Amino acid sequence: MTLQTNEVRDANGDESRPHDHELRERAQRVIPGGMYGHLNMGAMPADYPQFFQSARGARATDVDGREFVDLMCSWGPVLLGHHRPEVDAAAARQAALGDCLNGPSARMVELAERLTGVVSHADWAMFEKNGTDATTLCCTIARAATGKNKVLVATGAYHGAAPWCTPVTSGTTPEDRANLIRYTYNDLGSVAAAMTDDVAAIMVSPFRHDAGFDQELVDPEFARGLREICDASGAALILDEVRCGFRLNFGGSWESIGVEPDLSAWSKAIANGYPLAAVLGNDRYRTAAQSLFITGSFWFASVAMAASLATIEVLASEDVIGRMQRNGQVLRAGIAEQAERFDFEINQSGPVQMPYLSFAGDADRSVGSAFAASALRHGVYLHARHNWFVSPALTDDDLAQALGATEAAFAELRRTAPRPR
Amino acid sequence: MTLQTNEVRDANGDESRPHDHELRERAQRVIPGGMYGHLNMGAMPADYPQFFQSARGARATDVDGREFVDLMCSWGPVLLGHHRPEVDAAAARQAALGDCLNGPSARMVELAERLTGVVSHADWAMFEKNGTDATTLCCTIARAATGKNKVLVATGAYHGAAPWCTPVTSGTTPEDRANLIRYTYNDLGSVAAAMTDDVAAIMVSPFRHDAGFDQELVDPEFARGLREICDASGAALILDEVRCGFRLNFGGSWESIGVEPDLSAWSKAIANGYPLAAVLGNDRYRTAAQSLFITGSFWFASVAMAASLATIEVLASEDVIGRMQRNGQVLRAGIAEQAERFDFEINQSGPVQMPYLSFAGDADRSVGSAFAASALRHGVYLHARHNWFVSPALTDDDLAQALGATEAAFAELRRTAPRPR
Repeated sequence: MTLQTNEVRDANGDESRPHDHELRERAQRVIPGGMYGHLNMGAMPADYPQFFQSARGARATDVDGREFVDLMCSWGPVLLGHHRPEVDAAAARQAALGDCLNGPSARMVELAERLTGVVSHADWAMFEKNGTDATTLCCTIARAATGKNKVLVATGAYHGAAPWCTPVTSGTTPEDRANLIRYTYNDLGSVAAAMTDDVAAIMVSPFRHDAGFDQELVDPEFARGLREICDASGAALILDEVRCGFRLNFGGSWESIGVEPDLSAWSKAIANGYPLAAVLGNDRYRTAAQSLFITGSFWFASVAMAASLATIEVLASEDVIGRMQRNGQVLRAGIAEQAERFDFEINQSGPVQMPYLSFAGDADRSVGSAFAASALRHGVYLHARHNWFVSPALTDDDLAQALGATEAAFAELRRTAPRPR
Repeated sequence: MTLQTNEVRDANGDESRPHDHELRERAQRVIPGGMYGHLNMGAMPADYPQFFQSARGARATDVDGREFVDLMCSWGPVLLGHHRPEVDAAAARQAALGDCLNGPSARMVELAERLTGVVSHADWAMFEKNGTDATTLCCTIARAATGKNKVLVATGAYHGAAPWCTPVTSGTTPEDRANLIRYTYNDLGSVAAAMTDDVAAIMVSPFRHDAGFDQELVDPEFARGLREICDASGAALILDEVRCGFRLNFGGSWESIGVEPDLSAWSKAIANGYPLAAVLGNDRYRTAAQSLFITGSFWFASVAMAASLATIEVLASEDVIGRMQRNGQVLRAGIAEQAERFDFEINQSGPVQMPYLSFAGDADRSVGSAFAASALRHGVYLHARHNWFVSPALTDDDLAQALGATEAAFAELRRTAPRPR
């Protein structure tokens, strides 16, 4: 693989370490398909690195030593930038004491206090490891509280990869999905039509961020309508904050529109990359939450909780979301100007800090993929079929490199691709 | 709470930090029930600490500064002793590079290679975060491979805390459990009777370790019979190694009896307390594993994988299991002698390195709880209704303190409790 790119050897670059293509070959032998899940680069252009070496701030380095401006933030978990010193220091202090002990440490209580203080709807917290643990637990709590079975989810929404919610049904049973009813995001009529006497909960994302589609902000009337339907029916309103949490509002993603869920599912960014998930709930669901047996070997481990406390402290003391928005605005404006200049009709959807880029008429995403591959070769790591995550750690230099790379990609696309309109 | 015990302030003891009873009160406000899951000490005697401060080797210190000889190893995850230096060093080296990156690091391939090299039945590996992730994924792979739905599990067996397997059904739906069929452990006739045309898998633990019951080693004829039934029917044989993995045999818990599962679920001890789970499988199930979409935000993170590589390296270079067995034998012999001397009829069941202690006629576990509480006050952390995990890091001093504590507990019980026979 020879690349025309501004590649840089990372400081610790070890020329003897295996290259991406060697690791892919080895992985093919010992990992089904060579990789799985959302980090499987099998469907991305061939230049996309499968294996990474390191990251710092808003820069990520692959195993071949190519350094990129990182617009994916590890697909969400990295909120403040890679290796934010305060977070790593808090984690290291806790690690020196202990992580997975015979019981939780005081960090668990401190974190539950902190989260319930920050997130307006929350009276209590429970911790897990995966976002899917959190969304699943919300459903279980809602069912225990209501004695009902059905959960409403939006068509196309992603709420995790357990058998009940994975977007690929291979290996799932009809019973795994028997209690799901679909509605259309931002369509209150579809929700009303989907309601039955047996609905335990309505699950909803803060905005519509289905992979592979233009994003759609929530209509505040829709959110308020969901709240009313839940209040009238006794169903729980569950907000799936796994992807958005702490990126839109500090107090919960719907804080700004004033709609409070009963339960919310959090993961990804709450500990700046350390593995943690949380369910937050209000007092109406406390007894039900208490009635379950739900646990995991590492759910009470303290290092990720210490990291989360430090992450929240940074959020409380700095305008992190504002910086993400400012950086996102710079990127959006720059990309819009470039698209115009190179005569591409594009759509940039969703909040500026979680943007999704699509090209008009690009149904098979071939133009988007070519753009992403070119941008990658020019030094920015972004995705063609998933929203990006804009880091507050992007420096002016990083932003300039990112926009330089997108500009080069538009230019290259204009030279090689047929006009999409 | 004043205790007559050989309590020791830990070296970093901070007198100003909150005590266990204060943390319990605070937890009651912000965590449902004050705690949940297997680390909820609500049902244990009042002296049992809910919150821990630190641990090292085979010693654990609670937030009140009481230091115990640790016979629980954090309920399994700690295999080599707390803070095994080689493991922590490998984790720290990887953490300095990156944990949760935009893709896996080379550690993932190295670990998949290592595990498939060590565990005899395994041709490939997939990684997750929870033991429940691993047992669930095994079922999903088996269903994808066979096109069938049912999974056979032993009555009373614990395979995790997801809706399909949690021992408490609050908040679960009938559909969550609709595809389970029960058999009786070590009873091949019950398995044969449970088979239908729609069985995708038989799941089994390496030995019977149902919480609250005397343990039962596997009958090799039963294991061989399961293999034959699976071969004849096309169902997958799934070995749930979450609790036993790397504690009975290096190459898999049934290596010594020569029965190979198709799929095995691992977690807990494989990274010496760092959060990791794994599914190992043979080539017959590779295509099915490849057909799923299963993932988690932190499943590809490298620190726990680096820790697992270092853990396996220690297992390969030292007789870890032999040391656990030797220490377990010392404890079993010592406790047997003490029980005899104090005239208690007890049963010590299961492998010596994963022992379970019960008292004859103690149906409500009140004698066992009193024994555990007394032993705790005298300096050993053990459990009354769950198997213990014997550490290879126990020194002769640790073993002497542990047996001193159990002796004091037997003596105290003899003074205060009615004779159970």
